[in-house]
Amino acid sequence: MRKEVLTLAFARAVFVEFLSTLIFVFIGLGSALKWPSALPSILQIALAFGLAIGSLVQAFGHISGAHINPAVTIAFLVGNQISFPRALLYVLAQLVGAIAGAGILYGVTPANTRGNLAVNALNNNTTPGQALVVEMILTFQLAACIFASTDNRRGGGGSPALSIGLSVTVGHLVGIYFTGCSMNPARSFGPAVVTRRFSPAHWVFWVGPILGACLASLLYFYVLVPYCMALSDRLAILRGTYEPEDDWEEQREERKKSMELTPP
Amino acid sequence: MRKEVLTLAFARAVFVEFLSTLIFVFIGLGSALKWPSALPSILQIALAFGLAIGSLVQAFGHISGAHINPAVTIAFLVGNQISFPRALLYVLAQLVGAIAGAGILYGVTPANTRGNLAVNALNNNTTPGQALVVEMILTFQLAACIFASTDNRRGGGGSPALSIGLSVTVGHLVGIYFTGCSMNPARSFGPAVVTRRFSPAHWVFWVGPILGACLASLLYFYVLVPYCMALSDRLAILRGTYEPEDDWEEQREERKKSMELTPP
Amino acid sequence: MRKEVLTLAFARAVFVEFLSTLIFVFIGLGSALKWPSALPSILQIALAFGLAIGSLVQAFGHISGAHINPAVTIAFLVGNQISFPRALLYVLAQLVGAIAGAGILYGVTPANTRGNLAVNALNNNTTPGQALVVEMILTFQLAACIFASTDNRRGGGGSPALSIGLSVTVGHLVGIYFTGCSMNPARSFGPAVVTRRFSPAHWVFWVGPILGACLASLLYFYVLVPYCMALSDRLAILRGTYEPEDDWEEQREERKKSMELTPP
Amino acid sequence: MRKEVLTLAFARAVFVEFLSTLIFVFIGLGSALKWPSALPSILQIALAFGLAIGSLVQAFGHISGAHINPAVTIAFLVGNQISFPRALLYVLAQLVGAIAGAGILYGVTPANTRGNLAVNALNNNTTPGQALVVEMILTFQLAACIFASTDNRRGGGGSPALSIGLSVTVGHLVGIYFTGCSMNPARSFGPAVVTRRFSPAHWVFWVGPILGACLASLLYFYVLVPYCMALSDRLAILRGTYEPEDDWEEQREERKKSMELTPP
Repeated sequence: MRKEVLTLAFARAVFVEFLSTLIFVFIGLGSALKWPSALPSILQIALAFGLAIGSLVQAFGHISGAHINPAVTIAFLVGNQISFPRALLYVLAQLVGAIAGAGILYGVTPANTRGNLAVNALNNNTTPGQALVVEMILTFQLAACIFASTDNRRGGGGSPALSIGLSVTVGHLVGIYFTGCSMNPARSFGPAVVTRRFSPAHWVFWVGPILGACLASLLYFYVLVPYCMALSDRLAILRGTYEPEDDWEEQREERKKSMELTPP
Repeated sequence: MRKEVLTLAFARAVFVEFLSTLIFVFIGLGSALKWPSALPSILQIALAFGLAIGSLVQAFGHISGAHINPAVTIAFLVGNQISFPRALLYVLAQLVGAIAGAGILYGVTPANTRGNLAVNALNNNTTPGQALVVEMILTFQLAACIFASTDNRRGGGGSPALSIGLSVTVGHLVGIYFTGCSMNPARSFGPAVVTRRFSPAHWVFWVGPILGACLASLLYFYVLVPYCMALSDRLAILRGTYEPEDDWEEQREERKKSMELTPP
Repeated sequence: MRKEVLTLAFARAVFVEFLSTLIFVFIGLGSALKWPSALPSILQIALAFGLAIGSLVQAFGHISGAHINPAVTIAFLVGNQISFPRALLYVLAQLVGAIAGAGILYGVTPANTRGNLAVNALNNNTTPGQALVVEMILTFQLAACIFASTDNRRGGGGSPALSIGLSVTVGHLVGIYFTGCSMNPARSFGPAVVTRRFSPAHWVFWVGPILGACLASLLYFYVLVPYCMALSDRLAILRGTYEPEDDWEEQREERKKSMELTPP
Repeated sequence: MRKEVLTLAFARAVFVEFLSTLIFVFIGLGSALKWPSALPSILQIALAFGLAIGSLVQAFGHISGAHINPAVTIAFLVGNQISFPRALLYVLAQLVGAIAGAGILYGVTPANTRGNLAVNALNNNTTPGQALVVEMILTFQLAACIFASTDNRRGGGGSPALSIGLSVTVGHLVGIYFTGCSMNPARSFGPAVVTRRFSPAHWVFWVGPILGACLASLLYFYVLVPYCMALSDRLAILRGTYEPEDDWEEQREERKKSMELTPP
């Protein structure tokens, strides 16, 4: 557990999760404010949430993985892809970032426009059970898209950042009607803290996304495209001490090379 | 015929076709519900159908090919790209998935919002013949986009998943006015079963897409970018027993390598 | 002049230009019909034109280059990128395709919805001179995007098909207000022939796009990223008899290899 | 300082910055005109600004880097990525281009439609302080997306041009309500010069974007993904005389090769 956590790269990654969740929540909620002049359309809001993720994954994906979402981080943990300390600190950073993003938005928005800061709640007579199913399915497809887009066994291709971003958008095109669309506990938690409006169904926006993402993780990493690893290696990943033996030297070479200057 | 069908990869692929058609139909129909508060716009619906395909192709394309559409599967069969057993099981999985997706949506949607679950029908005085031509042309361009995007002789490039998804979107921007836009028999079949509303023109949503996709397949795989193969090989593909001789060993190597862990 | 024209690949390419312009015009005009129930929005139309190009470039770019636009073809000729016979036959194929696409759309559309088949004309008091400038600038950016996206000296990257398609979309977001947005003489010619409505400013939709695209071509291929070639080679390209000497054998090898079957 | 500035490539790059800012401002402002027939929606304007950037980055990114934005150019200078003379001339070219683009638009637009040429100003009771924060955050995410998308240490991937373009779009989806959305001093300066309307808060559209982009630059190039270079090399970059020693010969080879003809 010592190894990974003490590196500079780890600190950068945690900071980046904080920062990108801050920006994501600021932009997402900011696109859904109740401007007296003209209410934003649902398509507009759906694109703002999705393209914000697209931009942030493109900007920070190579530094932290750009989860920007506790459900995704927990699902990566369940899929044995990241260590427990990393998951813990990512989730904390995301929650703090979400509160900060919602708080800054609250500060810069004219009072008559703030509304409820686009906090998630059950709309249109949706029951908690229905909302749970909707959040699960929508987060499932998002998480599966993330796992496949970032799976380096696959021979990259396509546009990971845009695919993931537009996967967030498509979820909103359905989910906004039911729940305002969470798919992300941090996105729900931030504005609830800032406006102090925890709806009785707030738990749905934790359980639904986390369940959906973890189901996708179990399916993807253990059934559809499983890794064959020794248990000791799996535990080392969990503890953050894992190092693949064989390629270590050549990876270091490569990393070193990739950090050399290439003239701008 | 034994070989392919008995592999684990085959079972995974069939399951993935079921699952992704379920999610596609859930999201697509879900974006087109008749919410009393605000009806979704046509652009919104077109983007939801298309981006759902984009997300699912990105997530599952490397597992099953992510057809998510009986017309596409049948066209791949006609183009001698997949075996008959695979085509048969894919189509079955897609139809069952579509019913499941429509059924789940029915369950989670408030009763006054369900409407006809966005079932396809002839709108705006369109005749069956006109609808057939429209569905054929729209599915033709979708299928051609799919064949080219997944053609590994071509030296990949671009964003296959997004291109295919947005090809679905553009079809909807025209087709919704005529027929609600099918381009996919499963998408039409699912809600028709759940709501028990088979319009007299339901056949159009099978014949049109399948004809359009098969025409694209004949053109692409036999005229524009033909394969030169022995008849015995073609039959082996059809039966699901085909194995390219030369590269077999190196492919196995590569596959093995690609399954080794690369640290997350 | 014999060589290129007599190949099968040439015939395929000309046919593909016909077919893709047919589909492009069918979809583009089809997205802009005057449906009594709900008029399409400008954004919707802009996306339909652009995503249709995106889908068709993805589907057919490797076969004909997917110009789908006489202005683009003429600009490639001016840039010494294609032969004169190829340019001539492409333009003919595009014009016939555009008439066919507009004609089919006319046939499948209910009479009260056809309107003027979205024929281009001067809107909102735009003068011919203003329209000319607008069409030139919009087509300039489209053509520059095409040249850079398909420039194989550049080390591909990005999503050529989507970039080109969205470049068409952005042109429409401005141009529709002025002229209905042409950027493509074939797109203007097709519906004008079918509805027999040649507005007095029809010439603008030929001169503007062709001038804009040719300016981009002169800039790109002779100033910004020039080719260094002997005059004899340039003439050979123009005549369609050009063959790069050095790599001929290895290219043939590669081409042969790329046509071998790779299992689906 | 002599070396870089005297090359043909440098002159091309400066010209391209002029030209692409001209087109960007023409399209962006042109999408936001006050047409009497139908006002453009916010989503439409946001997409026009973003897709214009997407198209221009795709078209000209390999020639000048396609900054098209003084804030981005200054941030690249601060990040020690470009020389001071380059930054200076880029910014001048961008400002002149923006005035030219706004001027041409003014000329081709019917008088009753020009409005204020979409000049930036404080809307909806936003205070200068609030506007500053909004512009900073929005430009921060754009700049971070640009730095990561063009970082050649990263092993390209995704669609740089579209990612950057859609990052501009998402900024507009929030920023239009507050300030009309600048994120780019040239975009604000051009129409202000042409319409002679410098609002008292015009400084916000310089300070906000430049601060946001420079913060992103400091974070990205010095903290998150730092370069390890000697001070002398850093100064050489700043002066425009830097040449990486080791790979010089092979780069020249490569460059030469990449300029050889590849048959169209």
